[in-house]
Amino acid sequence: MTAAQDPQAALRAAHDAYEEFAQRGLDLDITRGKPAPEQLDLSAELLTAVTGDDVHSPSGVDARNYGGAEGLRELRELFAPLLGVPADQLLAQGNSSLTLMRDALTFALLFGTPAGGAPWVEGRRAMLCPVPGYDRHFGLAEALGFELISIPMDDEGPDLEAVRQAVADPAVKAMWTVPLYSNPTGVSMSERRARDLLALETAAPDFTILWDNAYGLHHLREPHAQPLDALGLAAEAGRPDRVWEFASTSKITFAGSGVAFFASSPANVDWFLEHTAAGSIGPDKLNQLRHLRFFGDPEAVRAHMERQAALIEPKFAAVERALADGLSEGSAASWTRPHGGYFITLRVAPGTADRVVKLASEAGVKLTPAGATHPYGLDPEDAYIRIAPTMPSLDDVRAAAEGLVACVRLAELEAAAAS
Amino acid sequence: MTAAQDPQAALRAAHDAYEEFAQRGLDLDITRGKPAPEQLDLSAELLTAVTGDDVHSPSGVDARNYGGAEGLRELRELFAPLLGVPADQLLAQGNSSLTLMRDALTFALLFGTPAGGAPWVEGRRAMLCPVPGYDRHFGLAEALGFELISIPMDDEGPDLEAVRQAVADPAVKAMWTVPLYSNPTGVSMSERRARDLLALETAAPDFTILWDNAYGLHHLREPHAQPLDALGLAAEAGRPDRVWEFASTSKITFAGSGVAFFASSPANVDWFLEHTAAGSIGPDKLNQLRHLRFFGDPEAVRAHMERQAALIEPKFAAVERALADGLSEGSAASWTRPHGGYFITLRVAPGTADRVVKLASEAGVKLTPAGATHPYGLDPEDAYIRIAPTMPSLDDVRAAAEGLVACVRLAELEAAAAS
Repeated sequence: MTAAQDPQAALRAAHDAYEEFAQRGLDLDITRGKPAPEQLDLSAELLTAVTGDDVHSPSGVDARNYGGAEGLRELRELFAPLLGVPADQLLAQGNSSLTLMRDALTFALLFGTPAGGAPWVEGRRAMLCPVPGYDRHFGLAEALGFELISIPMDDEGPDLEAVRQAVADPAVKAMWTVPLYSNPTGVSMSERRARDLLALETAAPDFTILWDNAYGLHHLREPHAQPLDALGLAAEAGRPDRVWEFASTSKITFAGSGVAFFASSPANVDWFLEHTAAGSIGPDKLNQLRHLRFFGDPEAVRAHMERQAALIEPKFAAVERALADGLSEGSAASWTRPHGGYFITLRVAPGTADRVVKLASEAGVKLTPAGATHPYGLDPEDAYIRIAPTMPSLDDVRAAAEGLVACVRLAELEAAAAS
Repeated sequence: MTAAQDPQAALRAAHDAYEEFAQRGLDLDITRGKPAPEQLDLSAELLTAVTGDDVHSPSGVDARNYGGAEGLRELRELFAPLLGVPADQLLAQGNSSLTLMRDALTFALLFGTPAGGAPWVEGRRAMLCPVPGYDRHFGLAEALGFELISIPMDDEGPDLEAVRQAVADPAVKAMWTVPLYSNPTGVSMSERRARDLLALETAAPDFTILWDNAYGLHHLREPHAQPLDALGLAAEAGRPDRVWEFASTSKITFAGSGVAFFASSPANVDWFLEHTAAGSIGPDKLNQLRHLRFFGDPEAVRAHMERQAALIEPKFAAVERALADGLSEGSAASWTRPHGGYFITLRVAPGTADRVVKLASEAGVKLTPAGATHPYGLDPEDAYIRIAPTMPSLDDVRAAAEGLVACVRLAELEAAAAS
């Protein structure tokens, strides 16, 4: 009998392979979607794009002083075509789009939204969470007192029927979505799905989609995902206030020191600005001016993202190759081959994801905790693992993926032996 | 009869003086406490203090990437002695202390505070507002649903007896204060007053003082105000959680691109960090690293503030001279001669402040609206005018102050004639 035919021999072989991996004494971390130092180096010249000799924006604003709540006009004009929104409806703000999401949700909680309805804090409130999804989205909503409702993803985006049923409850106030290269599935929403979601009849008049366009420019391979005109589609559907769109340069220039953007209907932009201005005398315009000068025009941003892709894509390819080499035969595991974004989703045999993460950790490879892709950190199937290949070196990513394969095989055979 | 004896002649003379001023065709703005370009130039080298060649903090943190919610350790250590707080209890955050005040108040509204009690949003809530005070403080509290209660200022700070009476109401949750060189009075709180405020028995267990140390390093003249160890005094009084302290480098380096600080008890710092981290993957550490390198040590900050004072003090002196020359005799007006901070408070004949601001505006000098120094923009005496001399050039400040004198005299004589 070969190992493939003899379950005991197969388990022993898997165990040996795992031990061999563990003995390499690795110390790797593929938990978070952080850019690698080489990616950050691409923006080195941004750091000195503003010197004491010229601190004014093209229209003459002294970028050092207070003011300008909307952000520098010229930077909004530069990013508007990239994000597919009108510059008048685009705000350039601080260093974190997650903070803008927090702010917008907080404003809705305390003041309600222009779409009508009471302040959200006054009643039960629920957030639709496409799964697998982004743990920080879910954690923020939970921290703000939202019930989290899982919505399955299909290959066009969040499952329309599941959303339709959920929004019959007037407590369902909002929904997360990452329209392009979703975190972590890599799925990009189809225009059809976007139209349907934006037109949907909802019990809450102020139902809002948090449209986190985090990866709108983050292509890895052809064919690129098609951008979606969320604001235009919402307006066409007669629901202009349904979308809050977010984006940032965190994964374009510097992860901690980028510029974050908010785009929405004119009414929502006024609402956001009014509440922001009560607690701010303007964003960091010097950093905005650095970004403006470093890029100059939208084409330079696209070219920059091609340089990013040239650094990242080989890491994705290395992971995919390791998974294909190790798991194509005799394993229930499957995985995504994304055309953009920051993640690969690995689906292992149900009931084994947590064990895989534990095995990997013990062998020196940190993975995002199993369940992180689901509301409350609970994946009912215990099957999804998010792989973030960008931060470590190519060699390290390859080693981590090969080790991960050994963990997946061992956990799967352990589970089979125990059943 | 001389003009001084003949009211009609005096009014005519005042009117002529005002017309003469109006005909100069000035276009000046002394409304806001903005640094002048020369002040911002003092920090020019900060802009290039971090280049692509060295992006790491002294302890090896890559300042470009995500993470580090507390802010760069070394910058916290540099500012801790300047602010008189332990570095462990000091957070370095984004570009605006006003935003940190908004965040802390929002966290209290939604989650309550470590001092106990329900989320503040659940009931009536009131904020004590020392008057004359800072319009953005009052506006933020009003926007967040607080009732605003005026507390008179005396020459040691907010009137203790008025505060004592107000905090007997459990809805009184918080109080603004600018301990050093208060906006706009320039009054610095005595240590005795600080002790008393921090020890006060209050009906609300979670009564909190927002200690806006905006001008703690902003001395203009000897003797300098004595710094107050608010956190230490609160702990001594057995009420360690009573104080949220805020500060920033907005008026040290760049008004729009400084670093803001939050300091409080260990419990409050944990609470602030926990809620901040739900909506942020860390502050802009590159800007923090720039500040760290530009200054290097606390003494350099003090020396920098002496250079600031050398630019600002002559503007204060020019205003004071113009007021003394024009209003020392025959006018009810009085004004402050602050030893630090950003403002002069001019107290005109009751009932005339609004008229003075209007006259000045018509003659080309913009002043902060009368009433801005009081809750809801309503000064019951219509007597207080805030003068912000920093932003215009010395010549312009002098011209504006001379014109202001003409407005004060005319308004006063008009009022006398009408009564």
